[in-house]
Amino acid sequence: MSSSPHIAIVGATGAVGREMLACLAERSFPLSRLTLLASARSAGQTLRFRDEEIEISELTPRAFKDIDIALFSAGGSISSEFAPIAANEGCIVIDNSSAFRMDPDVPLVVPEINPGDARHHPRNIIANPNCSTIITMMGLAPLHRAFGLEGIIASTYQAVSGSGAQGIVELESQMQSLATGNPVVTKIYPHQIAHNVIPHVDVFEESGYTKEEQKMLFEGRKILGIPDLKVTCTCVRVPVMRSHSISLTAIFASEPSLEAARAALSDQPGLKLVDDPSRGIYPVPLNTTGKDDCEIGRLRKDQVLPKSLALWIVGDQVRKGAALNAVQIAEIL
Amino acid sequence: MSSSPHIAIVGATGAVGREMLACLAERSFPLSRLTLLASARSAGQTLRFRDEEIEISELTPRAFKDIDIALFSAGGSISSEFAPIAANEGCIVIDNSSAFRMDPDVPLVVPEINPGDARHHPRNIIANPNCSTIITMMGLAPLHRAFGLEGIIASTYQAVSGSGAQGIVELESQMQSLATGNPVVTKIYPHQIAHNVIPHVDVFEESGYTKEEQKMLFEGRKILGIPDLKVTCTCVRVPVMRSHSISLTAIFASEPSLEAARAALSDQPGLKLVDDPSRGIYPVPLNTTGKDDCEIGRLRKDQVLPKSLALWIVGDQVRKGAALNAVQIAEIL
Repeated sequence: MSSSPHIAIVGATGAVGREMLACLAERSFPLSRLTLLASARSAGQTLRFRDEEIEISELTPRAFKDIDIALFSAGGSISSEFAPIAANEGCIVIDNSSAFRMDPDVPLVVPEINPGDARHHPRNIIANPNCSTIITMMGLAPLHRAFGLEGIIASTYQAVSGSGAQGIVELESQMQSLATGNPVVTKIYPHQIAHNVIPHVDVFEESGYTKEEQKMLFEGRKILGIPDLKVTCTCVRVPVMRSHSISLTAIFASEPSLEAARAALSDQPGLKLVDDPSRGIYPVPLNTTGKDDCEIGRLRKDQVLPKSLALWIVGDQVRKGAALNAVQIAEIL
Repeated sequence: MSSSPHIAIVGATGAVGREMLACLAERSFPLSRLTLLASARSAGQTLRFRDEEIEISELTPRAFKDIDIALFSAGGSISSEFAPIAANEGCIVIDNSSAFRMDPDVPLVVPEINPGDARHHPRNIIANPNCSTIITMMGLAPLHRAFGLEGIIASTYQAVSGSGAQGIVELESQMQSLATGNPVVTKIYPHQIAHNVIPHVDVFEESGYTKEEQKMLFEGRKILGIPDLKVTCTCVRVPVMRSHSISLTAIFASEPSLEAARAALSDQPGLKLVDDPSRGIYPVPLNTTGKDDCEIGRLRKDQVLPKSLALWIVGDQVRKGAALNAVQIAEIL
């Protein structure tokens, strides 16, 4: 790979695509050229990158010639169709969809946790994990190294940005309707999301769990390399713009002292221990919005299970949950 | 007790006080007279009850003469001061504050669960449990009778009504500010609650748990009569007006089959099993608002612990979580 690769963003006009553009600029990513790809509808528009207006090109099978790394964030069906085409052209795809995450020949990478996995990519595809999973794993990886993670019982508080730009628009327009006394219109969520919480993210499976809930199980196992990790997750959409929070009990093989846990968490790059509750200091989603680091707090002994901790992890869904993580993978390459 | 008692509401102008008034009217509570008590500031104002405007009197130590049952909802310090005075006058106090809940001579009652406890009240005081605890216990009591409850791991999604009328005002005014582009003012919560979630309800204890979180433990033990029940709870305030939701894993002594669990839940008065997720049917807080029944759904096997279920319970905090439960206790008397 050239030290100044030619980068493409597929789905450049989406919430994550735009954030990828911002992350590349902020981190002064050493690229020689940037190509923006989107649907025919957006082609011809421009997006600003550093001091430049870059024109968006239409995504076609021929669009990947000469591109070294393509960051995909345009949904699973676009990834399923175009990622193999790009990979065949010799381009390395970093895919934000769930299409390839569980493929044994596709590494699933959080750069602070399993960067080495990114170097072996036989299909030329590297997958970016699910957003709630990335944020949860950012908090659990250092504790796993210290105490051996065996199980997770998690409940999420997921921002509307997880549904893309349309999720943000839906919450904003419902808030506006409530403030002005107009009827609330529901388009993309199964219920009104303003003034509500909805225990339904992604589709339900036979087991009664949603696909989103099972991602924490299957992706968690792959990222941490724990084939028999057990996970129960309840995913809930909340009227928050773009940071996810996760309340969880983590069960370990050896007894996790609070002191050793705090030490492990303090040493983790990309994670801030924000935990002085008697002074009102703990993570909240508004405080992590637009930030690279995830935050962890409310650390305490679980009162039900032995060798377990209760904790609270928060991170920006669009940034570390998606765009930043993908750009960090590109940096490894 | 007369079959048409003289009832008083202490804290009549608060969110719960007003709802008590509504519950007494809707349920055609057989009262001979209704006295409304509040601070000197509110005295002289009137509140509507059925077809009558009732003038509010000032709460003083002499206010309880001739009153048979006093429903208190004016905060812990008012209860601590005035409930014993009322009780000494022969009035039975039903107290919505936490002041007397753990007193061994004060029963702690959810009428659908432990109605018999309400009949033995040596101090003439009966306590209404914490709102999240009532709603959680409404879902767990039938499962406890069927399988023997041993532990609860819970994360809450608590509405702003839990902070009284001022919580609702704070969320409404912050929403209005966001919609109109004005600066958001934070008064009663430690952080902005609009577009945010805050893992901090009530004060923090040395253990790292809040008092609210430990209420689920201590009050749960007393209501269900399980002295060694184990509970881990994380209480989170969310921008919802007045229904609380609780995501939980419940651990039992014997294996809970989903069929038997559904049967037990379907038979519980005051609880509705709302659980057909593949058709988008599960409880959400907007749907329980203003309703008497709590709703339970998302029922499934916990994937981490044996003999355990994962589930989701929702109920109106002001109604079953406070006012309705107190009025139901008065009905037992």
